[in-house]
Amino acid sequence: MNKIEHIGIAVKDLNSSIEIYQKLLNTDCYKTEQVASESVNTAFFKTGENKVELLQATAPDSAIARFIEKKGEGIHHIAFLVDDILAEMERLHKEGFVLLNESPKKGADNKMVCFVHPKDTNGVLIEICQEIKWI
Amino acid sequence: MNKIEHIGIAVKDLNSSIEIYQKLLNTDCYKTEQVASESVNTAFFKTGENKVELLQATAPDSAIARFIEKKGEGIHHIAFLVDDILAEMERLHKEGFVLLNESPKKGADNKMVCFVHPKDTNGVLIEICQEIKWI
Repeated sequence: MNKIEHIGIAVKDLNSSIEIYQKLLNTDCYKTEQVASESVNTAFFKTGENKVELLQATAPDSAIARFIEKKGEGIHHIAFLVDDILAEMERLHKEGFVLLNESPKKGADNKMVCFVHPKDTNGVLIEICQEIKWI
Repeated sequence: MNKIEHIGIAVKDLNSSIEIYQKLLNTDCYKTEQVASESVNTAFFKTGENKVELLQATAPDSAIARFIEKKGEGIHHIAFLVDDILAEMERLHKEGFVLLNESPKKGADNKMVCFVHPKDTNGVLIEICQEIKWI
């Protein structure tokens, strides 16, 4: 785990939440991106070496829609940047963590991602991600 | 807001959670600290330029105990480092955010802290903090 890459926050309405976080963080949203495979629209802010990612569901059966239905808006996950996602998946598996993906999948922001089951991490959904360099 | 200073995670049992996060983050806990004013025991990990702070309640009526009772273990707050906490409190107040502290209070890790009401920030409890330099 090199560093926290981003913190993902589940929101009901992306546009109004972008305005809130622009005011809160005192910086402009620098990118929005639709991730069809995850049924989300996302918006990114830079803060130090990290990012804040807002996530709005685009389908009622998506992970973000179900999260909000169950827990309300709030922090959805913490993503850690790694150099070698396959090696890190193997390390975590050997340490006894349950991975939610058998192989890395394409996430937002040009990343391959894998999630760790929150039951093993005090209820915190952890993402590990690696930059895709060949696109 | 300069950067994310730390992410605070509410846990039921600090010792077992320290073991989990040492394995997860692949780094040792470098400090534990009791914060009597907040009725918490804390443990810190470094990850990049950020920290992860685990928080265990030491009193049943503390904020962390009530959080876990209501929502279960999980991410409790995100803390942003600022250079001038009073100026940042004024800026946030003028932007319409509700501050949970009228003046900065002493937090863990040699910081003055102030919290922003999560109703204004999509359910996310935001802390702003400034290093205390004169102690």
